[in-house]
Amino acid sequence: MPPARIGNSTLNTSPKVPIPTLERLATYLRFLIDLETSHVETISSTDVERQTGINAAQFRKDLSYFGEFGKPGVGYNVSELQSRIARILKIDQMQPIIVVGAGNLGSALIGYPGLREHKFDIAAAFDSDTNKIGRNLGGLMIQDASDIKCANEAIHARIAIICVPASAAQAVANEAIAAGVKVILNFAPIILKVPDRIAVRNVSFLQELAVLSYHLTTESRK
Amino acid sequence: MPPARIGNSTLNTSPKVPIPTLERLATYLRFLIDLETSHVETISSTDVERQTGINAAQFRKDLSYFGEFGKPGVGYNVSELQSRIARILKIDQMQPIIVVGAGNLGSALIGYPGLREHKFDIAAAFDSDTNKIGRNLGGLMIQDASDIKCANEAIHARIAIICVPASAAQAVANEAIAAGVKVILNFAPIILKVPDRIAVRNVSFLQELAVLSYHLTTESRK
Repeated sequence: MPPARIGNSTLNTSPKVPIPTLERLATYLRFLIDLETSHVETISSTDVERQTGINAAQFRKDLSYFGEFGKPGVGYNVSELQSRIARILKIDQMQPIIVVGAGNLGSALIGYPGLREHKFDIAAAFDSDTNKIGRNLGGLMIQDASDIKCANEAIHARIAIICVPASAAQAVANEAIAAGVKVILNFAPIILKVPDRIAVRNVSFLQELAVLSYHLTTESRK
Repeated sequence: MPPARIGNSTLNTSPKVPIPTLERLATYLRFLIDLETSHVETISSTDVERQTGINAAQFRKDLSYFGEFGKPGVGYNVSELQSRIARILKIDQMQPIIVVGAGNLGSALIGYPGLREHKFDIAAAFDSDTNKIGRNLGGLMIQDASDIKCANEAIHARIAIICVPASAAQAVANEAIAAGVKVILNFAPIILKVPDRIAVRNVSFLQELAVLSYHLTTESRK
């Protein structure tokens, strides 16, 4: 049996919590981090709706998977809600990540704002291009992609981001998995074949554009 | 009423075709383009399942929104299915796109493989950084972001890709919309406020990582 595909991700198991709920939790978390930075102490589900576009009932339902949140008439304590969602998503402790592919996309990811606030630590970058190996990429020295397994013995990353060309992506995925990686964020325009225990999420710019393009035709061609 | 959010996208209307179906259509299309390049003439839904991980029944159901496809016992003609899906997604004719934000991510997008095969033409790139304006980015001369409206009078792009920092994204979105843009692919980690008629899809690397992180905890921590 091929892995079940949910939205644009291939998750080989069936977690009880729907993927869209997890995606929205990540949106709430980002919003809450911003609020905390602005010293906002409490919010209502109506505030959430106004700020995120996710309706209040959906917000409450998403939280309901994980127990009791908020106080009637008072709302949600921003700091507490933020830590609870971070714990749920298990981004309450720093997680090392390896990036394979040190091109423009790799650079963009390494410099992406908010990674550290979300406890993601890009710990190493790899490439197979001998012209890139040894060079600096956002403070990391680009390492030889054939050393992933060896390097990860020290890093213990279980998350890999793959941003190599499609032709190289499967081999890179195999190496990352052999090196102990459990989940992959794949930017290469190819469907990776991975063992059932490995989770893959695909980010496809073409897919995103195609969905928007469809929308353009049905709604906005006036 | 705030716009309805579907998955990671804000589509302000309710198209009859579910968003995940559209996302899968884009996956089928990419797969079919590859097959055609390899001179494969016909495929079965089982082939689709084996190659994409999307099960055969789902594939048939996705196509069923758009009429009759394939011949019993023969399968699907690759070239015909490809053109029909391209027509459905309205990527059967070249569509101009503007990119705002000429950093690493903008560069990665402009150089992204497969854009032209999918009839997406990145026609102009903009930035507000005077050090970047006038420089070359993947064959395009970076233009001043304050000229979007004027430039788009010639380009007629209705798709904009926003890859500027969060602090600049809302202003850029406003300008793009004023310039005639109808749909936005937003990479800035901020929830854009847009009129109801405008569709936005958000690509959030943090969200993707957070969903994977959750999966890591439930399934792979052994």
